[in-house]
Amino acid sequence: MRFDEAYSGKVFIASQSDYKTADVVLYGMPMDWTVSFRPGSRFGPNRIREVSIGLEEYSPYLDRELTDIHVFDAGDIPLPFGNPEKSLQMIKDYIKTLLKDGKMPFGMGGEHLVTLPVVEAVYEALSDVTLIHIDAHTDLRDHYEGEVYSHSTPVKKICELIGPENVYSFGIRSGMKEEFDYAKKSGMHLFKYDVLAPLKTVLPDLSGKNVYVTIDIDVLDPASAPGTGTQEVGGITSKELLDAIHAISASDVNVVGCDLVEVAPPYDNSDQTAIAASKFIREMLLGFVK
Amino acid sequence: MRFDEAYSGKVFIASQSDYKTADVVLYGMPMDWTVSFRPGSRFGPNRIREVSIGLEEYSPYLDRELTDIHVFDAGDIPLPFGNPEKSLQMIKDYIKTLLKDGKMPFGMGGEHLVTLPVVEAVYEALSDVTLIHIDAHTDLRDHYEGEVYSHSTPVKKICELIGPENVYSFGIRSGMKEEFDYAKKSGMHLFKYDVLAPLKTVLPDLSGKNVYVTIDIDVLDPASAPGTGTQEVGGITSKELLDAIHAISASDVNVVGCDLVEVAPPYDNSDQTAIAASKFIREMLLGFVK
Amino acid sequence: MRFDEAYSGKVFIASQSDYKTADVVLYGMPMDWTVSFRPGSRFGPNRIREVSIGLEEYSPYLDRELTDIHVFDAGDIPLPFGNPEKSLQMIKDYIKTLLKDGKMPFGMGGEHLVTLPVVEAVYEALSDVTLIHIDAHTDLRDHYEGEVYSHSTPVKKICELIGPENVYSFGIRSGMKEEFDYAKKSGMHLFKYDVLAPLKTVLPDLSGKNVYVTIDIDVLDPASAPGTGTQEVGGITSKELLDAIHAISASDVNVVGCDLVEVAPPYDNSDQTAIAASKFIREMLLGFVK
Amino acid sequence: MRFDEAYSGKVFIASQSDYKTADVVLYGMPMDWTVSFRPGSRFGPNRIREVSIGLEEYSPYLDRELTDIHVFDAGDIPLPFGNPEKSLQMIKDYIKTLLKDGKMPFGMGGEHLVTLPVVEAVYEALSDVTLIHIDAHTDLRDHYEGEVYSHSTPVKKICELIGPENVYSFGIRSGMKEEFDYAKKSGMHLFKYDVLAPLKTVLPDLSGKNVYVTIDIDVLDPASAPGTGTQEVGGITSKELLDAIHAISASDVNVVGCDLVEVAPPYDNSDQTAIAASKFIREMLLGFVK
Amino acid sequence: MRFDEAYSGKVFIASQSDYKTADVVLYGMPMDWTVSFRPGSRFGPNRIREVSIGLEEYSPYLDRELTDIHVFDAGDIPLPFGNPEKSLQMIKDYIKTLLKDGKMPFGMGGEHLVTLPVVEAVYEALSDVTLIHIDAHTDLRDHYEGEVYSHSTPVKKICELIGPENVYSFGIRSGMKEEFDYAKKSGMHLFKYDVLAPLKTVLPDLSGKNVYVTIDIDVLDPASAPGTGTQEVGGITSKELLDAIHAISASDVNVVGCDLVEVAPPYDNSDQTAIAASKFIREMLLGFVK
Amino acid sequence: MRFDEAYSGKVFIASQSDYKTADVVLYGMPMDWTVSFRPGSRFGPNRIREVSIGLEEYSPYLDRELTDIHVFDAGDIPLPFGNPEKSLQMIKDYIKTLLKDGKMPFGMGGEHLVTLPVVEAVYEALSDVTLIHIDAHTDLRDHYEGEVYSHSTPVKKICELIGPENVYSFGIRSGMKEEFDYAKKSGMHLFKYDVLAPLKTVLPDLSGKNVYVTIDIDVLDPASAPGTGTQEVGGITSKELLDAIHAISASDVNVVGCDLVEVAPPYDNSDQTAIAASKFIREMLLGFVK
Repeated sequence: MRFDEAYSGKVFIASQSDYKTADVVLYGMPMDWTVSFRPGSRFGPNRIREVSIGLEEYSPYLDRELTDIHVFDAGDIPLPFGNPEKSLQMIKDYIKTLLKDGKMPFGMGGEHLVTLPVVEAVYEALSDVTLIHIDAHTDLRDHYEGEVYSHSTPVKKICELIGPENVYSFGIRSGMKEEFDYAKKSGMHLFKYDVLAPLKTVLPDLSGKNVYVTIDIDVLDPASAPGTGTQEVGGITSKELLDAIHAISASDVNVVGCDLVEVAPPYDNSDQTAIAASKFIREMLLGFVK
Repeated sequence: MRFDEAYSGKVFIASQSDYKTADVVLYGMPMDWTVSFRPGSRFGPNRIREVSIGLEEYSPYLDRELTDIHVFDAGDIPLPFGNPEKSLQMIKDYIKTLLKDGKMPFGMGGEHLVTLPVVEAVYEALSDVTLIHIDAHTDLRDHYEGEVYSHSTPVKKICELIGPENVYSFGIRSGMKEEFDYAKKSGMHLFKYDVLAPLKTVLPDLSGKNVYVTIDIDVLDPASAPGTGTQEVGGITSKELLDAIHAISASDVNVVGCDLVEVAPPYDNSDQTAIAASKFIREMLLGFVK
Repeated sequence: MRFDEAYSGKVFIASQSDYKTADVVLYGMPMDWTVSFRPGSRFGPNRIREVSIGLEEYSPYLDRELTDIHVFDAGDIPLPFGNPEKSLQMIKDYIKTLLKDGKMPFGMGGEHLVTLPVVEAVYEALSDVTLIHIDAHTDLRDHYEGEVYSHSTPVKKICELIGPENVYSFGIRSGMKEEFDYAKKSGMHLFKYDVLAPLKTVLPDLSGKNVYVTIDIDVLDPASAPGTGTQEVGGITSKELLDAIHAISASDVNVVGCDLVEVAPPYDNSDQTAIAASKFIREMLLGFVK
Repeated sequence: MRFDEAYSGKVFIASQSDYKTADVVLYGMPMDWTVSFRPGSRFGPNRIREVSIGLEEYSPYLDRELTDIHVFDAGDIPLPFGNPEKSLQMIKDYIKTLLKDGKMPFGMGGEHLVTLPVVEAVYEALSDVTLIHIDAHTDLRDHYEGEVYSHSTPVKKICELIGPENVYSFGIRSGMKEEFDYAKKSGMHLFKYDVLAPLKTVLPDLSGKNVYVTIDIDVLDPASAPGTGTQEVGGITSKELLDAIHAISASDVNVVGCDLVEVAPPYDNSDQTAIAASKFIREMLLGFVK
Repeated sequence: MRFDEAYSGKVFIASQSDYKTADVVLYGMPMDWTVSFRPGSRFGPNRIREVSIGLEEYSPYLDRELTDIHVFDAGDIPLPFGNPEKSLQMIKDYIKTLLKDGKMPFGMGGEHLVTLPVVEAVYEALSDVTLIHIDAHTDLRDHYEGEVYSHSTPVKKICELIGPENVYSFGIRSGMKEEFDYAKKSGMHLFKYDVLAPLKTVLPDLSGKNVYVTIDIDVLDPASAPGTGTQEVGGITSKELLDAIHAISASDVNVVGCDLVEVAPPYDNSDQTAIAASKFIREMLLGFVK
Repeated sequence: MRFDEAYSGKVFIASQSDYKTADVVLYGMPMDWTVSFRPGSRFGPNRIREVSIGLEEYSPYLDRELTDIHVFDAGDIPLPFGNPEKSLQMIKDYIKTLLKDGKMPFGMGGEHLVTLPVVEAVYEALSDVTLIHIDAHTDLRDHYEGEVYSHSTPVKKICELIGPENVYSFGIRSGMKEEFDYAKKSGMHLFKYDVLAPLKTVLPDLSGKNVYVTIDIDVLDPASAPGTGTQEVGGITSKELLDAIHAISASDVNVVGCDLVEVAPPYDNSDQTAIAASKFIREMLLGFVK
């Protein structure tokens, strides 16, 4: 007696109702409590689902349909307001279960800090993982006004976990001097302003590797993604981000998990950013899930 | 592995997952194709669900909690775009099933025309029903520029079905001269501008009767409900509408079904109308479901 | 070959194409250059016309239809940007022509200063006129930072022209101490906060008099009229303003002209204020034009 | 006594009042009843006219002024709400009259289905016409959930009418697999993602031909056109669309009619899309009307 | 060389530059990290200052001008993101300094939790204080999902501090059953729905007492205050809140401090709520500072 | 006792409190009274300051921090509403003082007319200055409907002052035929559509010269700057404007003053344009102040 959720905006379009047969599990991480400027990304995952009903299931870029893969949309992890540490623990525990069940994790943020526990869980399971990080911001702070768990620190923490030489950042155009200095000295790979060109040079080196892909929607120019906490002009176009996703899809890396974060509906005029995110997610699903 | 929908905005807050034990079934009728001015109410039901997570489950007005009753949220009926006749048939068929299963129907619109097939199904099942119609508009046209199935005609069609003497309209402040003339001549009961005062005089007469309650959100002043297709200044406050709902709850009428219609998110600044609607629905659930 | 403008939003709904047979002429005064806080009312008249297509032509309050009277919508007077003096002269010249042709002038603002030249022209023609001024603001300054032609001065100038004893202000809740002092000393009639109650006591005294009615939309509480330059909380409801218009209609005063000003679309969410204004204008037309 | 409409936003800027001497007739087709996702384009034509007052009449791209040509703005065709078939018939009848009178038709939508009856009328008159279709979507469905007259089907219907080999689609980035398969098999010319480059290769082949140009505003990236029903990221810039219009202008094709559709004001923040559309229309007028 | 901040929106209008001679100190508490539904009130204080330039300095209600008193606007306390405990400590420390210097504290929120440390500091200084709490919500939880420092708990904590018999809540219309039960049993004074009437009965009993007044802007109906995190329909009008402030002003209570909280600009269309708040603050300053 | 304004949005981020030691003085010119289309830029400077708190102080483009230079934010010049002549005089007088004190002037508009008095003061002081003008509009009118002081005339007036051969305009894509004709005949340098490429060819010729740089935010495509009075599609990206600023920084010209104008918050969804402007200002400060 319940009408089909897969075409109602209550789950991501064309997702299926059976967890067991799923290849990939989509889940929301509705957390924005450590954000310094404009909060609101806690509402991102649900809005992305809601507007996904406007999508075609077929990608002319990849010549593939969503029904060709098995996606299960698990809903949002019920994270406790204002408690970053407990939130991160809940995310990590959930991802461990997914990995144990052989599912590829696909997260929707929420602030960027949510990527940290996912990568921790993936690293614990695989003991070898490379990060492709597409973002306007370095996210390389040690702490933000004393808080180590902050939306400004996750990439730094991941560098410490998996080794800076295994971290590749693209599109970066904002950060503190200290963060750029760390990037230079530590051996991590930070590419400023552009995404597609440096990605194409890097991908052959990552051939066969386990890769986790994290995309902060603010890598886009605010023209394409006004609905985010910290807009940074001088960003890439939505065409370039599509091309970047397709470049990863066409490469020989082994995508073991991914996320798209920082869609903030309170600042998102006519749902422009959420609609964009829904299409990037379709392409990531069709391109990353083999 | 799916997180609880009852607290995620994917179903109405505190609704339960078991259809069988439900007393009342909540469903969306996402249709706005016959609207003459500003369309968009097709997105109403989902937005109401989404913002319902901001509600308390307890009503201090009625001293009752949503968990005291059994609500099943069935999602939106998948109505065919631009085809009013087929849409009305689908709604009617669905309501027949609900009534056969002993469930009280609770609809969310969508345009006001959706009330017609529900009342038809209820009337066929019970052969005796009285309409309480709370609205800014008469909705008493015979046709709208030739179309008999229009958002301007449902109350006229219901008058013809159940007898004008069984139709009570409250809060009316807009319509054609012909519609007001019909109201006078036909024997139906039309109360202009106010809702609470005339309702209180009428309710004792309806004692013990089967009553269907339909509320068009535009009965509210646009100050309280900007997010609707056809705003009409001079409306009632949200306090008066709450009082009206509580007056029906406290009376001896037998509510056999109800709906709340015409919430149009594209015109709804900061979700004011959807949030208001979610609270009216909570009060209707707690007040009408015994 | 041109489609009917009267139902297209290009002229006010149901207005007629023949100037000669018109009883009343509707015109816009798209001027906001002396506004101190938030400009934008220059766009008010056109937006009011555009949303007027959502109106019924029939008023259930007055039991009369727009087609019962003859309204000609002349469009907007092409006022020169940033030049208040020349703008006022153009308005005055235009009103003189209307009066000579025996038409009742009905203006849409624009900032409140536009009322001044209209009253000047009416006073010159009739040499006897009383002002009913419904507004949140006194508008009684001598000058605003040195400028005598300002949105803060028109009522003062009108007091000097027609005599303060012939000026009645209602709903006033904002102004400088000096303005309230002037109101007390000068003999004009200033009623604070309320409109309907004092209006009802005053109207019998004005029986048979030539009255010009000017309504500043900001007399409404911002809940009912967010789209205006200077919102003032503590205002009246749209119901009270409708009642006030109907009280004037039902009285024995002789309305010789009127206007509704200060609708500012850039701040008007979902056209709430413009839609409200269009309905007030319908009621003013049906109530004031005998 | 009526102020000049050509500079008031009531007709398109600089349009002239005499139908007889007009070279080109501008008309609105305010229809959005078959739209599957977000309705609202019925308000597009009037909003485009309103904001056209912000335009210069001179194009530095084409070194030509609007007053160099004769444009008559006929207003909106009064289409019946919710009745696609009757609407299409009214449009077709109107275009026939225009063509009989020797006027070039220039339409403003409304949903894309409105292009079908215009092309039908043009084809009946000329018996030879080629379609240049600039859009994000294929619009090649046979039907949409059973409805043959849908915003998803017009290009398919036109293929069947004028022959798929005479249909050229540019900028396409969304559709069903079946639609792309049809494009391949049928012999029509479908160019994905880009507009300018493939257009430049095609235009020489169309030299001397009768061409109808239809532009769906959603071919633009949502960054440039948020105010449309179905945004698709990965679109072209407004510069590229200007260049495409100018390429057609500079070619030897014979433009026999054109339209620009799918501007939807309810989703159009600060009128960005309507303002853009008004400028594209100026360039199309100056470039296509010889 | 710095232009006057008092008329530029950088400090509250008419505030003075000398801390020493100030009677009352205005400060922002830009914190929203424990909010469960819609965050954003961190931007409230600055937006209120910005729009205060639209205010008259004179109150016709109180016949007093802002320049009659000495207000110093200290700016926002630089609270650490996402750390409630440290934030509360910083607020408390700051208020202690103010009280030691003999200044009346006047706070602008931020979420309602900020009231707790202010009342703690006031209580420590005076050892006797009564709370007047005007709000839609009880704020009487013990904890929110385990967190004791939450926007849902401050009134409970204050009850425990100053004794529930010294706490008077007005306008309450939302909360958990447990909270209303506590209110009944504990001996605190909770008045549902209305503010002015119960306040008038209570004020004589508080004659001569030290009173701290806290106003949550959501006590207003969402029609008057859409820009807040958790809207609750059925609220009071802005007129009633003005009357309530004036009733306190006219009484014999000794106001020792006050605040106005929960203005959330991201949801505040056309600054309606911030403008309203700026006027309430003017009236509170003119009425509470003797 | 006042909290640090530099991190509270009341002054531009990282600006310092001492005028004497400042290298550069930032000031607002909140004037929009001669604007023909959409007013509102009077609120630009304050909104830019407010959102500047979201900026990093470090520029990865220039490898320099705001604390490396000495910026004093003087607030807004208190210009008289609706009086262009007096406003221009006040600006000029202020700039003379700044120049006498050896400060580099950095203005924030307001409408573009504000540039005229600044250049006048600079020219009087240095008797030799070249203008780099980056804008969508020619601004070369002699008068606008008779008014010589208009937002459409400043560049013409500057041509007459400093000689057209010393004026370089970039990115121009809108104006009257007469303006483009003047540009051709007068000997000034006008580059259409593009900014970066022609700038790079011109900069070597300006080596060692005193240059005043004025940027109208509407040179950007409306996708990047919706919040401005007169949007013009076909504009440059924010990347190109950043590159242009950096090209000037890297050249050997001597920047003696600059401004950024026409940010209009009433049309600026989610502060996109103000946030962009704040970053351009950071880059201009770091690049132009040696």
